[in-house]
Amino acid sequence: MITLEIPIGLAEIEASRQRIARAVRHTDLIRSEVFSRQCGAELYLKLENLQSTGSFKIRGAFNKLAWLMEQPLDKRPKGVIAVSAGNHAQGVASAAATCGVPATVVMPLGASLTKIRACQEMGATVLQRGATLEEAFEEAMRLAAEHDYFFMHPYNDWQVIAGQASVGLEVLEDLPEVETVVAPVGGGGLLAGIALALKLKKPSVRVIGVQTEAISPYFGFIQSGQFSPVQADAITIADGIRVKLPGDKNAAIIRRYVDDIITVSDSQISEAIVALMERTHTLTEGAGAVGLAALLHHKIPVRPDEKVVTILSGGNIDVTLVGRIIDFGLVSSGRYLVIALILPDRPGQLVRLLSIIAELGMNIRQIEHRRGEMHVPVGLSEVILQVETKDQAHQQQLLNQFKAEHLEVRNLTKVVGLYH
Amino acid sequence: MITLEIPIGLAEIEASRQRIARAVRHTDLIRSEVFSRQCGAELYLKLENLQSTGSFKIRGAFNKLAWLMEQPLDKRPKGVIAVSAGNHAQGVASAAATCGVPATVVMPLGASLTKIRACQEMGATVLQRGATLEEAFEEAMRLAAEHDYFFMHPYNDWQVIAGQASVGLEVLEDLPEVETVVAPVGGGGLLAGIALALKLKKPSVRVIGVQTEAISPYFGFIQSGQFSPVQADAITIADGIRVKLPGDKNAAIIRRYVDDIITVSDSQISEAIVALMERTHTLTEGAGAVGLAALLHHKIPVRPDEKVVTILSGGNIDVTLVGRIIDFGLVSSGRYLVIALILPDRPGQLVRLLSIIAELGMNIRQIEHRRGEMHVPVGLSEVILQVETKDQAHQQQLLNQFKAEHLEVRNLTKVVGLYH
Repeated sequence: MITLEIPIGLAEIEASRQRIARAVRHTDLIRSEVFSRQCGAELYLKLENLQSTGSFKIRGAFNKLAWLMEQPLDKRPKGVIAVSAGNHAQGVASAAATCGVPATVVMPLGASLTKIRACQEMGATVLQRGATLEEAFEEAMRLAAEHDYFFMHPYNDWQVIAGQASVGLEVLEDLPEVETVVAPVGGGGLLAGIALALKLKKPSVRVIGVQTEAISPYFGFIQSGQFSPVQADAITIADGIRVKLPGDKNAAIIRRYVDDIITVSDSQISEAIVALMERTHTLTEGAGAVGLAALLHHKIPVRPDEKVVTILSGGNIDVTLVGRIIDFGLVSSGRYLVIALILPDRPGQLVRLLSIIAELGMNIRQIEHRRGEMHVPVGLSEVILQVETKDQAHQQQLLNQFKAEHLEVRNLTKVVGLYH
Repeated sequence: MITLEIPIGLAEIEASRQRIARAVRHTDLIRSEVFSRQCGAELYLKLENLQSTGSFKIRGAFNKLAWLMEQPLDKRPKGVIAVSAGNHAQGVASAAATCGVPATVVMPLGASLTKIRACQEMGATVLQRGATLEEAFEEAMRLAAEHDYFFMHPYNDWQVIAGQASVGLEVLEDLPEVETVVAPVGGGGLLAGIALALKLKKPSVRVIGVQTEAISPYFGFIQSGQFSPVQADAITIADGIRVKLPGDKNAAIIRRYVDDIITVSDSQISEAIVALMERTHTLTEGAGAVGLAALLHHKIPVRPDEKVVTILSGGNIDVTLVGRIIDFGLVSSGRYLVIALILPDRPGQLVRLLSIIAELGMNIRQIEHRRGEMHVPVGLSEVILQVETKDQAHQQQLLNQFKAEHLEVRNLTKVVGLYH
């Protein structure tokens, strides 16, 4: 059970808002007609994916560092160090650049070239150490001790939480009638900050956290006060909230002020990313899309006239992964299908297949005709078909037609194992 | 030579701004530090890709329709019809929905399912007719006559131009010190509107239009007053500005008020799309990225302290194409390489290859080892290698290493034929 006292209140939150104003954008809160219709509520999106550095993390990092720089001279850091393969790294690098403090970022080996470059461009020293974040963390601790650098925690820090709370203040300012706010949870810095700000200023607001199914230590936490166990090798498309051990400071606030925490699957997340690309023309990373995913899949009960805000917390997706994520999203929403069919190896069979597809108004993305595969008997051949479809019902029409023609079909879009 | 009189001035432009205010967003103008550095100027981006309906087209379409609805009752349209496979369709559908006028949109066969759905959701009737835009146009004309619908031209219309001019007014309002504005040109509605607004209010502003090399009828037009011929079957990634025959009204304004028109290649455009995704976390379609592409490739002379605005005119990219466009962009900027190598078919050869790649710190995306290809002699095998690299120099290191080891390499990222 969490028993920590919460030493920050409205005064600290409002001071932090002032402190970060020069480095942080007040991001737009936009109403989405199409998502409102689909979610069955009056839905607003808070575009933290368009925040400077591409995520809300700059808020907490900047507040912490600027707060440190207000301390007596001998207590100010000579340098800061952080461990992160993503958004926190960029938040710290940017905050350090603005405050004129040297920053070192430790990333595990194999970190994305884009994210390394982004930190370096802001003047940070990037070190690639260790195979995992845990190993990188140990190295950072060693360096912090050796060089007397201040270690910037990504979430378990009262000033970081106070910084993230500014998201809640902006929501309330832009939409005073807000009734429900849905935010992602990883370590819990953002959710704790938002919940604190909202509940202290407008206790009637409902605050819901969303995690990814694969990694959901907070699942059941509001009810039990206990973290759920997380599989050691679990992976998720929402790497920004891949946090196995939440902080006790975050948990204390979340237990007290958050109304519920729910989970969504990786398929639902990728579907939401694609929908956001198409409807808002902005990029949202996996972690940033969990709230919309939950609402689109009706995992949170809402009224049609309820004013609901979901926080798109960040937009840092590696571009080399965007194409694949889109494919997952299209599959999940019934707009892309990959199947293998076994056909008699006779002239005219492929034409017959293509005619069926054309009559249903589908677009072919790729087609492969393979004779001589070892798992296909002699006299038959295999066709791998990638088609773009309108929705699940459209796909079912195709599958029914194949069934009627006694063709054997395997669906190749059922993800094996790791992703859900 | 163009001799058309220009019947619209500041009064019409400012009236149009008032008229469209209720349906159109005043989009953000954001300063980009990283692009400023790369372009060698003080660069601002006008985010029309986040405009309602995903592009500036709503401005002109709404102004035209709202203007028609201000006419005496017997002159108001009973319905409107448009031909478009893209942004104009959505602009008209949205304007018609707001004004309460029935809209029909004719798209050629094979139009994107996403765009069809977007128009239908706004209440428009979508008809798929004809193999090309030209054929769809004939059908629309027939329907317009039959049902007495008003035909909404996408660009060659004074009220449409006056609507697009609001982009120029907003730029001037948000950045009165602006010195240069760079905008895409297809039919010329946006460029003509912007040029008119800017030159009438601040004649010292330089206005530059950008076309895609593949389809650039305006190339040389400022100098000669003549359109350049366009290849009948030309294609481009920037389908929003794939206009072979510009309008005479647009041309009259452009000849008089635009300073220059330049071109960029499809590779440069895809590179700019990727850069915008990574740096602004917004989606920009090919047509919307031509201005940034021109600036990043130093095709427009600028001073380091010059205040330059480029218009990201739209964000409607079909998500099923995003992955491919990213790959083109990554290739163009030296961050993705696909090569074929011929190796002796002996144990250990593939390990040797992979070691070279690992030592250079590259990430492998895909690798294929093929023995028995018909173009490879017996005793040798072919390896197809897809790697992610930092830049062109990084790629060259790899190629040099292969050369030193006497390995034969074919670069598979040189696009054949159609794309440049």
